[in-house]
Amino acid sequence: MREVASMYFTMIAVFLVVLVVALQGTAPRESPFPYTVPLDPQGLLELSWNVSYPLRLVHFQVLVKEPKFGLLFGMSDRGEFENADLAVLWSDGRNSYFGDAWSDEEGQLHMDSQQDYQLLGAHKAPEGLYLLFRRAFSTCDPKDYVIEDGTVHLIYGILEQPVHSLQAINTSAIPTGLQRVQLLKPNISVPELPSDMQSMAITAPDVVIPSQETTYWCYMVELPEKFPKHHIVMYEPVITAGNEALVHHMEVFQCAAEQGSVPGYNGPCDAKMKPAQLNVCRHVLAAWAMGAQAFYYPEEAGLAFGGPGSSRYLRLEIHYHNPLVFKGRRDSSGIRLYYTARLRRYDAGILELGLVYTPVMAIPPGEAEFQLSGYCTDKCTRLALPPAGIRVFASQLHTHLAGRRVVTVLAREGRARRVLNADTHYSPHFQEIRMLKELVPVLPGDELITTCTYNTQDRSRATVGGFGIMEEMCVNYVHYYPQTQLELCKSAVDPGYLRRYFNLVNRFNDEEVCTCPRVSVPQQFASVPWNAFNRDVLRSLYGFAPISVHCNKSSAVRFPGEWEKQPLPEVTELRDAAPRCPPAPAARPPAPVALHLGRGQ
Amino acid sequence: MREVASMYFTMIAVFLVVLVVALQGTAPRESPFPYTVPLDPQGLLELSWNVSYPLRLVHFQVLVKEPKFGLLFGMSDRGEFENADLAVLWSDGRNSYFGDAWSDEEGQLHMDSQQDYQLLGAHKAPEGLYLLFRRAFSTCDPKDYVIEDGTVHLIYGILEQPVHSLQAINTSAIPTGLQRVQLLKPNISVPELPSDMQSMAITAPDVVIPSQETTYWCYMVELPEKFPKHHIVMYEPVITAGNEALVHHMEVFQCAAEQGSVPGYNGPCDAKMKPAQLNVCRHVLAAWAMGAQAFYYPEEAGLAFGGPGSSRYLRLEIHYHNPLVFKGRRDSSGIRLYYTARLRRYDAGILELGLVYTPVMAIPPGEAEFQLSGYCTDKCTRLALPPAGIRVFASQLHTHLAGRRVVTVLAREGRARRVLNADTHYSPHFQEIRMLKELVPVLPGDELITTCTYNTQDRSRATVGGFGIMEEMCVNYVHYYPQTQLELCKSAVDPGYLRRYFNLVNRFNDEEVCTCPRVSVPQQFASVPWNAFNRDVLRSLYGFAPISVHCNKSSAVRFPGEWEKQPLPEVTELRDAAPRCPPAPAARPPAPVALHLGRGQ
Repeated sequence: MREVASMYFTMIAVFLVVLVVALQGTAPRESPFPYTVPLDPQGLLELSWNVSYPLRLVHFQVLVKEPKFGLLFGMSDRGEFENADLAVLWSDGRNSYFGDAWSDEEGQLHMDSQQDYQLLGAHKAPEGLYLLFRRAFSTCDPKDYVIEDGTVHLIYGILEQPVHSLQAINTSAIPTGLQRVQLLKPNISVPELPSDMQSMAITAPDVVIPSQETTYWCYMVELPEKFPKHHIVMYEPVITAGNEALVHHMEVFQCAAEQGSVPGYNGPCDAKMKPAQLNVCRHVLAAWAMGAQAFYYPEEAGLAFGGPGSSRYLRLEIHYHNPLVFKGRRDSSGIRLYYTARLRRYDAGILELGLVYTPVMAIPPGEAEFQLSGYCTDKCTRLALPPAGIRVFASQLHTHLAGRRVVTVLAREGRARRVLNADTHYSPHFQEIRMLKELVPVLPGDELITTCTYNTQDRSRATVGGFGIMEEMCVNYVHYYPQTQLELCKSAVDPGYLRRYFNLVNRFNDEEVCTCPRVSVPQQFASVPWNAFNRDVLRSLYGFAPISVHCNKSSAVRFPGEWEKQPLPEVTELRDAAPRCPPAPAARPPAPVALHLGRGQ
Repeated sequence: MREVASMYFTMIAVFLVVLVVALQGTAPRESPFPYTVPLDPQGLLELSWNVSYPLRLVHFQVLVKEPKFGLLFGMSDRGEFENADLAVLWSDGRNSYFGDAWSDEEGQLHMDSQQDYQLLGAHKAPEGLYLLFRRAFSTCDPKDYVIEDGTVHLIYGILEQPVHSLQAINTSAIPTGLQRVQLLKPNISVPELPSDMQSMAITAPDVVIPSQETTYWCYMVELPEKFPKHHIVMYEPVITAGNEALVHHMEVFQCAAEQGSVPGYNGPCDAKMKPAQLNVCRHVLAAWAMGAQAFYYPEEAGLAFGGPGSSRYLRLEIHYHNPLVFKGRRDSSGIRLYYTARLRRYDAGILELGLVYTPVMAIPPGEAEFQLSGYCTDKCTRLALPPAGIRVFASQLHTHLAGRRVVTVLAREGRARRVLNADTHYSPHFQEIRMLKELVPVLPGDELITTCTYNTQDRSRATVGGFGIMEEMCVNYVHYYPQTQLELCKSAVDPGYLRRYFNLVNRFNDEEVCTCPRVSVPQQFASVPWNAFNRDVLRSLYGFAPISVHCNKSSAVRFPGEWEKQPLPEVTELRDAAPRCPPAPAARPPAPVALHLGRGQ
């Protein structure tokens, strides 16, 4: 330990030089950090970043508003401090040090053999201490986190006492926290906006944020009478200054046109006195989550609202996340919609992919990674999509509490072609509408397979599909244009085959015929004696049995055709991408060695 | 293509310098190549090699007795020329070139981006052209083959015409072949041999090798009357000069003592006139396969033969591999046993692990990789092994034609501890007794799990366990001392659970009760309508159902105890070894970057 420390000091001079050179050479010049997010609930740590796709790296800037004796910042699979990848700034009271570290299964820190968080600068300013560093998406250090598309769980820790070495930091004894962000924002240019653009702020008026960790706040807004059809072309968050760390996510829903008038409301969404009609306001107009920026529709499309056949009532829902239980904080946050009366060429639409909300799709208890897949079949897309197909430009993934991963794959002629959207670190606590990196065309005859991975290790009974928070969903809302009649394209296992499964399990486990009366599917799942065989066979059933397909114009109206007992699509898997770590560059270029062996050899 | 070729020429000078330096610096000095094997049936290509475990690399020397316009030499998963890793020497008629190449799925050659077959020298001698090169066990080039313990499929090709570039070589239009060897011979020192050591050559006298591709030749030998108990301490092959490429493998078996006298015989093992008594000669005394060297027993143990209660009759079996159908070749090859009358401390024993030979263990047709496991349970080892346990020093893996991989894992207290022996490129055509790299102690209470992987892609019906060549086995004969009464420790699925499987399959697929009469297990397997579900459920059954354990003193006598419906051992898996490719060395050593931020920061 002493030797290591002395080595550190010996190398200070060297590194300071490296530091200055790197800082001058690499720091981006103007508008360097387009994305900003508070890390902690008090907003004392502020992260800004930018992404370079050509260089495949991220520049980070952390502003420490009240610097103490250092900071841990990093990433891990789900926000834990074990097996994490960390940049650490620490001070022994006299000198400060920076290093790339990793934590083992016990949360103990170690210096990384390869320093991949590269410090580019550190300076003090009136508002606090700025730290600037960068990190490649993917290093070849097996201890390092790989920055992928989708959710990244950022973690931080604050050193309130001097520490004399990295190894002396006890991550379980310091204030720590977690923030989820989409680090790899797509690199798409802002479309041109219409000159007649108007805006409308849907904001909750002067809410007193309840002094509890989690509040879903509901506020009803009414559009003017005879408000004609417009196209929403963009929306952005409006956050009350100082509340950046409390406003976790917000959505604007439109009520169902059939419902007629809906009473006004301004209060918690789960309050007993909340009017029941609010529950029919489920058509998403806009969604924002922490770390997201303004959302722009593609230039040729807009989201229709207003006009006949469209409800005048909108519901704003705000999730306040107040873990420090601040009292009396006032907030008027919301979302500002930008719209135009000069309708764009295409109406945008939202198509729901994945699993039908039905208990026949279930996850056994105690599973670390159980997958369920929902299919949008070639038969449905052939029937419902226009000959030129549709273009998907955004996607919002959705599960309930057990969801850990969601991916939608597009297949054509039985072969998986591309990932439409994937989040391998998906969290049900961070659901945002994400722009795709590029438009994805979906043609008639294509298949869209949405696979969700669930963790039920903390559960003792099976988790069935359904609407309840302890039931599960597997959904990908894809945003596309031109709008079609197809509103949902989902599937579930054929219920007859599931009955055979229950019969089989009863017989296999008891060697006597089960004569139980016909009970509900959730009750049948609840009575399965879960063991390795019953789990495996359920998995095999879902991978084999025919499906019931919902190819629907609305949640209740199917397209005409036979949709029961459809064959499960057989799709060859997507090939894994090339190995991430190329071999070290060869010492010499690959050319043959020439020999002189005489004629003819 | 032209550009590449011109680059080659430009670089000739550079590489010749590299070559000379490398040759002088690296070639080992004395007894450089302990292992030798002919590559082709005519013996025109001879491979010699050595292994450096400290450097984790192999030095190869190929002698080309009749050099033409070049040579391909390399490795692939099972000896195919697609997806192979090749060192290539080629000549355009004027100059010769050497390079590290790989072949794609179509067998087309490409230069490797990283040159891992490193040429160390090439020279002509009266006996032919010598090529010397080396290769690390594991490179970090994803196109490269990883040299592992166990069988390696070496491939070669001969260029009979000049070629102008590597890319111009058509591997399907040149003479090619395959040779299986254990490249990574264990690095164990030769034990001291007794001063009174005698030897006995068990050789077939002047056999005319039949002019057909495959012959198993049987020759009976009789030990002298009253031949007392001796210990075999070593044996080695005796190969008639010139027949090195024809003698594929040889075994010496002892007949069963109960059988009494056995008639003499010298002829093909499958001849109709062969005496039936030869079939009881199945106790292995010695086994050799191409590429193997002398086999030494550990200093403290020997294999008993002779004495009362031991048969005086030995059977030599030689597999002649004669693909070029040479006529009239004479052979007197065999095995020389070295033995001592001064008995060593321990008798060596052979214990049979794996699966019982029974049709209840079956592999569905059309499987690329189907695994079956046989268990030697803690209950059996607790009962049958001495308190100090046994030491395993060698292992011979055995399957029939569908076997592709065999591994035995040792588990203790429910946790896998180590691999006892593994061959991930196992071939049923290359079964040799292999010394382990070190003695493996097996204690009472240990579990030994032997898993075989089968390929049945070319079969249309299920493959059941049994003695027939088209049935399957999964066996590991482990050689150990001190000898115990335990002769076999194997398992098979409980037959009652297999019956439930057949019932389940019948019901699941037809939704009507199968009332078939009780037919044999092979017939029941033959009538399964194989689909993804039935395959998966069979796999799940084998991974769940209780087992019948054979914990036997001899093939017919079990140790006392309850051995039916035993629980399947639950064993946590062995952790994967660390990733093979370490990151490129860091540009600077891992030390923190020191900062100057003022006091207390």
